[in-house]
Amino acid sequence: MGEPLTVGVDYGTLSGRAVVVRVADGAELGSAVFEYPHGVLDETLPATGRALPPEWALQVPADYVGVLRNAVPAALRDAGADAADVVGIATDFTACTMVPTTADGTPLCELPEFEGNPHAYVKLWKHHSAQPQAVRINELARTRGEKWLPRYGGLISSEWEFAKGLELFEEAPDVYAAMRHWVEAADWIVWQLTGTYVRNACTAGYKGILQDGQYPSRDFLRELAPGFESFVADKLEHPLGQLGSRAGSLTAEAAAWTGLPEGIAVAVGNVDAHVTAPAAQAVEPGQMVAIMGTSTCHVMNGAELREVPGMCGVVEGGIVAGLWGYEAGQSGVGDIFGWFVEHGVPAAYAHPDGVHEHLTRLAAQQEIGEHGLVALDWHSGNRSVLVDHELSGVIVGQTLATRAQDVYRALLEATAFGTRKIIETFNAAGVPVTELIIAGGLTKNALLMQIYADVTNLPLSVIGSAQGPALGSAIHAAVAAGAHADIRTAAAAMGSVQRAVYQPVPAHVAAYDELYAEYTQLHDYFGRGGNDVMHRLAARRRAVSQAVAKGQS
Amino acid sequence: MGEPLTVGVDYGTLSGRAVVVRVADGAELGSAVFEYPHGVLDETLPATGRALPPEWALQVPADYVGVLRNAVPAALRDAGADAADVVGIATDFTACTMVPTTADGTPLCELPEFEGNPHAYVKLWKHHSAQPQAVRINELARTRGEKWLPRYGGLISSEWEFAKGLELFEEAPDVYAAMRHWVEAADWIVWQLTGTYVRNACTAGYKGILQDGQYPSRDFLRELAPGFESFVADKLEHPLGQLGSRAGSLTAEAAAWTGLPEGIAVAVGNVDAHVTAPAAQAVEPGQMVAIMGTSTCHVMNGAELREVPGMCGVVEGGIVAGLWGYEAGQSGVGDIFGWFVEHGVPAAYAHPDGVHEHLTRLAAQQEIGEHGLVALDWHSGNRSVLVDHELSGVIVGQTLATRAQDVYRALLEATAFGTRKIIETFNAAGVPVTELIIAGGLTKNALLMQIYADVTNLPLSVIGSAQGPALGSAIHAAVAAGAHADIRTAAAAMGSVQRAVYQPVPAHVAAYDELYAEYTQLHDYFGRGGNDVMHRLAARRRAVSQAVAKGQS
Repeated sequence: MGEPLTVGVDYGTLSGRAVVVRVADGAELGSAVFEYPHGVLDETLPATGRALPPEWALQVPADYVGVLRNAVPAALRDAGADAADVVGIATDFTACTMVPTTADGTPLCELPEFEGNPHAYVKLWKHHSAQPQAVRINELARTRGEKWLPRYGGLISSEWEFAKGLELFEEAPDVYAAMRHWVEAADWIVWQLTGTYVRNACTAGYKGILQDGQYPSRDFLRELAPGFESFVADKLEHPLGQLGSRAGSLTAEAAAWTGLPEGIAVAVGNVDAHVTAPAAQAVEPGQMVAIMGTSTCHVMNGAELREVPGMCGVVEGGIVAGLWGYEAGQSGVGDIFGWFVEHGVPAAYAHPDGVHEHLTRLAAQQEIGEHGLVALDWHSGNRSVLVDHELSGVIVGQTLATRAQDVYRALLEATAFGTRKIIETFNAAGVPVTELIIAGGLTKNALLMQIYADVTNLPLSVIGSAQGPALGSAIHAAVAAGAHADIRTAAAAMGSVQRAVYQPVPAHVAAYDELYAEYTQLHDYFGRGGNDVMHRLAARRRAVSQAVAKGQS
Repeated sequence: MGEPLTVGVDYGTLSGRAVVVRVADGAELGSAVFEYPHGVLDETLPATGRALPPEWALQVPADYVGVLRNAVPAALRDAGADAADVVGIATDFTACTMVPTTADGTPLCELPEFEGNPHAYVKLWKHHSAQPQAVRINELARTRGEKWLPRYGGLISSEWEFAKGLELFEEAPDVYAAMRHWVEAADWIVWQLTGTYVRNACTAGYKGILQDGQYPSRDFLRELAPGFESFVADKLEHPLGQLGSRAGSLTAEAAAWTGLPEGIAVAVGNVDAHVTAPAAQAVEPGQMVAIMGTSTCHVMNGAELREVPGMCGVVEGGIVAGLWGYEAGQSGVGDIFGWFVEHGVPAAYAHPDGVHEHLTRLAAQQEIGEHGLVALDWHSGNRSVLVDHELSGVIVGQTLATRAQDVYRALLEATAFGTRKIIETFNAAGVPVTELIIAGGLTKNALLMQIYADVTNLPLSVIGSAQGPALGSAIHAAVAAGAHADIRTAAAAMGSVQRAVYQPVPAHVAAYDELYAEYTQLHDYFGRGGNDVMHRLAARRRAVSQAVAKGQS
């Protein structure tokens, strides 16, 4: 027999990735990706061709099993590994991707009577039609002074378990009645591997409003909607599994799917951003991991419970057992750069290396402040620290001499200012950030990384793995299998990070301090009540669009 | 003999246009354009190849005579007119395009000893290197409380006679010493036609700081620069000609150049924007003409003298004898739209009809407020009413759903808001605007015109002629020749305007009132001291650019 291995499986929005990792040192021996055959259902339901309303995003749960059947065996082949050496498997998933199931875990969409009902399908994290329900939850929680609300920076998202659950209750009572469990896909996939439903403490806390052992009260739920008061007891409540624990053993059926040995350890389900922390060896208080892609998710452990304004949530043991796991976010980062490149850059910037690369090279030639611009990075709203999705982008300082690379650089800088604002808010709330570690696709942009170091005045560490979440899951698998004592030990052995790859340059730090002061002044003016123009513009835009739609129907 | 005709000649930045007009009804019988062979000298001096500093813009006066020699005969041919029927000629010019001459009007650049000296050439209106001199003039005038300063909205421009004159005094003392007259090109060309120097009251007032019969005092000039105190007496002061008056008679030499009869009336020189007013029949108090091109110039008569904050100037008889002529301006209009199309629109918007036309059509499909944006039109600074060239553009409200046509429409609207701000400022100062008449190249954009009507809540009249300034000159020629009693009568007979072509739509007016309130709030925040971020960004940009230039040299 060879050295012990684990398999980590990372479930993304469009595909799942399996990686085979050596337990001793975290070496990634092989990997494979399987794209979901049905992708994201956002236009029609395949069974009936029925059109879906705007803001809907569904998935087909059998696609997730397809990852187990295809990507896991392919990763083993890619690694040239003997399946017999694999001691455990773990998975991570997008958070609050919700599966309505029967008592035995069968997704309702797989029942013939519901295959034509969109509410019976998986509601993907970015299914956004439960916004009216989220608004009601927040208004009522504020009115009643629910003490869990501050743990989420004052806002429950339309993406989360209660908003989507209330939507189901109100819009599809037959599906709601037939549903026994309202299951995070993170847990549903573990159920498929083990035959047992274990609810993971991470999503229960961050997305299920489980705080200090309590969900929102029956009183609260009744006031929200009569009849909804039993939602927790009937559909949600379930024994919890702690992160890094063993949820159960691989069933014979799942062993057949994956080619892995029956009976090996299966870890409790987890979330992509959160498993990235151990993959980047960031498991101590103060080590903030920013997973930078289309948006940025910030996760960090803290020794104590604090209420940080505008965070996404704080959960005990939410990342690593024994510490408080904090989460924050910037709702638009890479997608702002992508939007600008697609919609704001003239043909003259076409380049064999790509427009992003070309603009980055041009922007890198500039001194700080040479473009004369300052921007607010709110094109997709502001998650942390303002928690306001009606905010929008601003750019100040354009002249007839302004060129695309100037705006591009100003947008890169604006997202760095947004990260600094989050760090300063954590610091001020008594949860000090001592190190910034970057993961995700944007790590490959060296200019962006240097700007982040200069703006935050922190040395920037960069995760060593290009497949951080899958590696993080493999680490969880090793702990669940008993190959490492706990997540900390496993992270030290298997995680990888390059420390202080980008050092802040003192002259740059000083220059950016001044530009950050400009950002802060505009941030507070537009975001904290100085001028509510963005809300008024958004309200008018919505009213006009609705009137136009009405006129056309 | 046929019906009496006049010739109007409009001198632009790159060419001169002659038009032959029937005195009875203003019919434009023929026209021709002559491009200046030397164009604008902004890189090198032709005589020596000597490089010119940035912000310099020179011209060669012989090119202006070329227009008389070529365009006037060609226009007569185009009209099929008998030159014997022409009873007068008049010219209009860009303002504060300055010619240093000897006592007999010879431009100093035509003297062999000065042909290599750039200061001996014509300094075009947009020659901008006298900014340091302008700053000193303004600071000293403010300090001393010079009473002429408010007549110019509180700011003397670097383009005007005193700033350019001081630059000449300080940087080229030999040229300054050799110069007898510092002549507006508007008057120099009339000098060529008549053999006599007559200084026109319009530019003397608007650009030469002649107010209530007084130029700035010797005291003021001495304090500005010792030795400069005799500038007015030695170089500037000269008998004035009133607009519409006869400056003299066509000389035999000029008759030979033009093919026109010797001895016919030549009108006093004038300025392009100002002669457009009679061409658009806008000679009564309250009729504001906006000449909309790359920038917009607003001219209007008022019955009384008022100090309007941020106007470019007010001059007695500056447009029509007996009334106070007011001028205001927006420093960027069409050039903002052009900048955006060149530097901010992706390849997908290429269209056989042109990008402007395509964007306009897409923008015209939107309801007001549908784009969710509001912009400040300060990409080229703000002339009226803030008089601040360090201001810059702003756009608020961009999201990932924002497209090029949204920004384009927001920029069109921003310039309309800027015009409304000027109109409201005139109204508030006791110089009420009762009609808005549009001239210039942008009249062809129907969407833009409707937006201006809706934003200002004024019926929009449009000038009937596509060559407004040349027609306006022909009107002045008719008055100078005695064919009409005065400018008012001549304008009524020869000018043309289509009244109320665009009517404000009440629902649009109400919607724009709300967006204009947003514009005003941002206008005052960024432009009136709420947040001086634009000045700080501009200062930083300048400092960085200078450091970069220094590092490279």
